[in-house]
Formats: sequence, C-alpha cells, structure tokens
Amino acid sequence: MEEIKIHSKRRDYPVILGDNLLEIMKSDLDGDIRYFVVLDDKLPSKYPKFIKDLSPNSMIYALQGGETAKAFDVYAKITSVLLENNFSKKDMLIAFGGGSILDLVGYVSATYKRGIDFISIPTTTLGMVDASIGGKNGLNVDGVKNAVGTINPPLKVLVGLDVLETLDQRNFNNGLFESLKMGLSLDKDLYDIFKDAQERTYLKEVIYRSLIAKKNVVEQDEDEKGLRKILNFGHTFGHAFESASNYSLLHGEAVGNGMLVVSKNKDYYADLLDILSRMNCPIVSSFNEEDLINRIKNDKKADKTVVDLIVVNEIGKAEIIPTKIDDLKGMVN
Amino acid sequence: MEEIKIHSKRRDYPVILGDNLLEIMKSDLDGDIRYFVVLDDKLPSKYPKFIKDLSPNSMIYALQGGETAKAFDVYAKITSVLLENNFSKKDMLIAFGGGSILDLVGYVSATYKRGIDFISIPTTTLGMVDASIGGKNGLNVDGVKNAVGTINPPLKVLVGLDVLETLDQRNFNNGLFESLKMGLSLDKDLYDIFKDAQERTYLKEVIYRSLIAKKNVVEQDEDEKGLRKILNFGHTFGHAFESASNYSLLHGEAVGNGMLVVSKNKDYYADLLDILSRMNCPIVSSFNEEDLINRIKNDKKADKTVVDLIVVNEIGKAEIIPTKIDDLKGMVN
Repeated sequence: MEEIKIHSKRRDYPVILGDNLLEIMKSDLDGDIRYFVVLDDKLPSKYPKFIKDLSPNSMIYALQGGETAKAFDVYAKITSVLLENNFSKKDMLIAFGGGSILDLVGYVSATYKRGIDFISIPTTTLGMVDASIGGKNGLNVDGVKNAVGTINPPLKVLVGLDVLETLDQRNFNNGLFESLKMGLSLDKDLYDIFKDAQERTYLKEVIYRSLIAKKNVVEQDEDEKGLRKILNFGHTFGHAFESASNYSLLHGEAVGNGMLVVSKNKDYYADLLDILSRMNCPIVSSFNEEDLINRIKNDKKADKTVVDLIVVNEIGKAEIIPTKIDDLKGMVN
Repeated sequence: MEEIKIHSKRRDYPVILGDNLLEIMKSDLDGDIRYFVVLDDKLPSKYPKFIKDLSPNSMIYALQGGETAKAFDVYAKITSVLLENNFSKKDMLIAFGGGSILDLVGYVSATYKRGIDFISIPTTTLGMVDASIGGKNGLNVDGVKNAVGTINPPLKVLVGLDVLETLDQRNFNNGLFESLKMGLSLDKDLYDIFKDAQERTYLKEVIYRSLIAKKNVVEQDEDEKGLRKILNFGHTFGHAFESASNYSLLHGEAVGNGMLVVSKNKDYYADLLDILSRMNCPIVSSFNEEDLINRIKNDKKADKTVVDLIVVNEIGKAEIIPTKIDDLKGMVN
C-alpha cells in the first residue's frame, strides 16, 4: 500500500492506495467508531457487510449515484436520518461511491452539527483521481452545478483498485480522461503512458501520478485564488459541451472534447485525438459555436465577459490566460 | 466609534461600535460593492433606503425574524434568488437583523458558491452581544436547533446602538440577560453594572464589555473543544426551560432561569434573583423536574449521560464541571 500525505489549511490527511479495498478497510476502519455510510446502491454487498460486521451500530444508507444525489432534498433527508438516529460529532460519515456521493457527503460533513468527520472511499476512476482530494464538495441548485458547497477535506481517503471491477468500460475511461488532462497539463510522464496505450497496464501508476499532480496544485492554492484554476484545463469548453449534450456526454468525455478545442493548433493535437478515439471518447464533430459561447458566458449563471482559459503549449506545462469570451469565437471550428 | 479586533483561525475581523448606525454604515459600506441584504422586515425603511442609494444594484430581501427564518426552505429560497440574480463571490451579503437572521446569512455565506463574504449588522441586544461574534451559524431541522451549521466569521460587524430603539422592552432585556451571564461568569465589573441597576445608563459599556468577554473566550477556543463551553453558563437548564415553555420564554429569559438553578446555594443568589426580577425576567417557579432532566438528556437528540455543567463559585470566574445527568436531580427544587 502507498500513502500520499495531503497538506491542507484545514487539516492534513492521507490517501491510502492499494490493490484490495477490503484489505485497506481492514487496516483503516475502526470497530469502536460508529459509522454512517452513504453507499452507492450498485456496489457489491461485501463492502457494507464488512462495515456492519466490524461496527454493528453503524448504519448503511444506500442511494443511487450520479448527479441526482447532489440535491437539497437528499441532503435534507440525510440530515433528518442522522438526527433521528442520534449521530453526533463523535461518530463518523463514510462516503462510499463516485464523485457525486463524495460531493454530497463532503457537504453533509461540513455542516452537520457544525462539522462531523468523514472518510472518503471513491469507487470510480473519476472519484479516485479528481473528487477524492482537494476538499471541494457541492450540491446542485436549480440546475446550477455546485451552486452551494464548501472546501472540507476528509479525514482520509481509501483507494482500492479492485473496486473498479464494478465499473463499466465507459465510466472507467471517463475518469481516465481527467488523468489524461493532468498528464497533458502537469506531468509529461503520465501523458506518455496514455500515448503508449499503457494506461490499463500501469493503472496504479496512472492513479498515483494523477493524485500527486493534483496534490501539488491544491496544496499551493487550496481556495482557488489562482494556480488551482490550472486543473480546469479542458473545462471551459468541457462544461459547455456537457450541458449542450444535455449530459449525454459524461464529464470526462466532455473535458476530452474541451481539451481538443483549445489544442487545435498544437503539435500534440493529432496524438491527443488518437488517444481519445482509441479510448472511445465520443468526439463531438458538429456543434453550434454561438450556443457554446453563450453557455460559457452563463456558466454557473455568472454572466461573464472574460474567462481564465487554460492552455498547454508544452506537454506537462499549463498556462492561465485570461481571455475575452468574444475572442473564443472562431476557436471551435 | 470603537473598534474591537477579533482574531479567528478563519479570518480576523473588526467589530465597529458606535451610537449611530447610519453613520457607521456610511463609513463602512462601499458603493462599488453589490450587496444582497437579508433584512428583518420590521426595521425602519431608512436603512434599506440608505443601501439602495449607496449601491443601486444591491438587492433587499426582507423577511420575518425569529426562529422561523432558520429553516432549510428559507435557505433554499435565498440560494435560488442569489442564483437568479447572478450574485457571485465578488458580491457581498449583509445580515441585517436579530440573531436568527445573522445565523441564516452566516450559513448562506459559508456555502453559496463555496463561500461569499458577509457583513453582520445586528439589530437586537441578543444579536449584538451574542450572535455577532464567534462565527457560529445554524439552521434548525426537524425541531433540532442548529442541527446544521458552520463556523464562518463575517468580514466585519457593525453595531450602532440607536437601532435598538426599534426593540420592545422585553426583547431589549432578553439580550441583556446574556450580558449579565458574561458578567457573572467572566467579568465582575460588568456584573456590578447590573447589580447597581445601571445597565441602561451604561449601555455602550455593557455591550463593549460583553463583546470583549466573548472575544477573549472564542479567540482561545474557536471550535469549542473546551474553554468555549464556558459561554454555556445557564444554558444547560436554560435550553430545557426554553423548550419546556414551548418557546414562550425567550432565550435570554430561559438562560436567566438556568443561571438561577445552578446558583441556588451561592452567595450571589439573592442578588441575581433581584436583578432578574427587576429586569422583568419571568421567573419559573413551578416545573416538572423529571421532564427538565429528560430534556437535558435529549438536548440536540444526543441521548447524553454526562453534561459539562458550568458553575460560578466566585463572581467573574466560571468552571466547567462534567456532571452525570442523574446527579442533576434534586438541584432544581
């Protein structure tokens, strides 16, 4: 097992990375603690069973993963269940699922009784490489993604690679597109693994390197005053593609397309297109430029005129370039 | 005008204390900032008018003060209105009202877009001496007070004493009972002002001394790991009286009664009873001991067996004494 220590203004915490999730849970969960486990209902029963055997007073709260989990009514319902069952700050939450469940539980953790600890157990590639560290959480309100949220790091993050067997091919690759983004913008060696079509063979290294890349950024700028924006490489157009597709494009796929748009005239463009195609990322070939630009303007209902565009000129190095949104016209086609 | 600087792990912030609120607003609000003002609907129109004149793009959101403001649906509604009107982190919230509005807006501030600044303008004695500093906020869920909340300090606190003219006698004294508590447990000179029946004459000093007393405690223990519990003097039984009365007792009045219970055999008991009676605190003379004890056990649905009882043996000095709840029996009558 590897341990990556993440430094945060709020609290330092470790990411434990290994091949077998149950083994990690055996060494990192504590039978004397009462857990409230928010669990993706598609996960194999051996995981909740292990927790109930270890700590019989714990409670399992299963729900459907995905964006619908990040809603006020789900948050309110969980708060009520916690109150009814007398959960207090001595007890602990576990977020056991994909990025949405991690976001939901991180928010509950930040607010229930003014703060109750949580452990993060991501079960998707996207949850592992992106949502598990950095502390950001959020709920969607009126169709606005992460309209409310906090920055609230977990007590620890448990990453067991075998849990990914529960994931279908498309969702598996969805998270790896975020890793590809970290490689292209922050870590050339990571990018080269994708270029050599070796990301499955070296999966552990891909996840490890993605975590280190993100760690290095968020430790320097946890509150996203500047540098952390670099993680938004591919996201300016990505968010627009995602909403324009009415979320039929998955987040990572949309980011893949977003990277293509801002890399059109770069040396590595053809390679990037090859990697994305090989990994079955749906490449958006026809779209309405004006509609995309409008979506960028109104992202998070902010009515912006300038965006911080992230651009990669040399593989492994990203730059933040404040750009007038009107100047984005012509970039897409 | 006096300025009290409060140190916080999250951010340092000043409390500006003066006689005239509009004058303080003139020097401390900024016409270049767009404000979203959550305002107690009973306040004179000169206050919102001043803000709209200063910063015409600002928005006033008036609502009824009191516990009903601290609810999920009010929070959700305000979030929607902020989104609809494109409020962003560059803009600012103002909490303009009593303790409940301060709690509500503090919570919105902690969570909207992962954090938007707020200015606190308390308009009640209770809001001034208790809710305005320390950073705690909260919403009530399923009848549980402050079931969710965060610790999130304001950017600054503006205290103008003339706004208290809007307050009726009973609510005016309600907040002063919290000051009396600070005096008895933390500051003998403050207590003596009440003993000499001079709290109206020296109102500014009463509020100043209360703020300093609270500042000294919360600066040492912002997250209430230990010392901050001292502020709960009178609150163990106070919360029980408050809920047993079905909230017909105001918070400060209930705390007044709570102080009496834990001070029954002290030298200062008769003086304390005199002060409370003179200030028209309704003294609860008959109650069901068993019911009160049960309410203490189930405070915040925690099913406790031990409470940290705060006891004052010498005026101006409080002690935290962990006490079995069963040992509270016999204390009341």
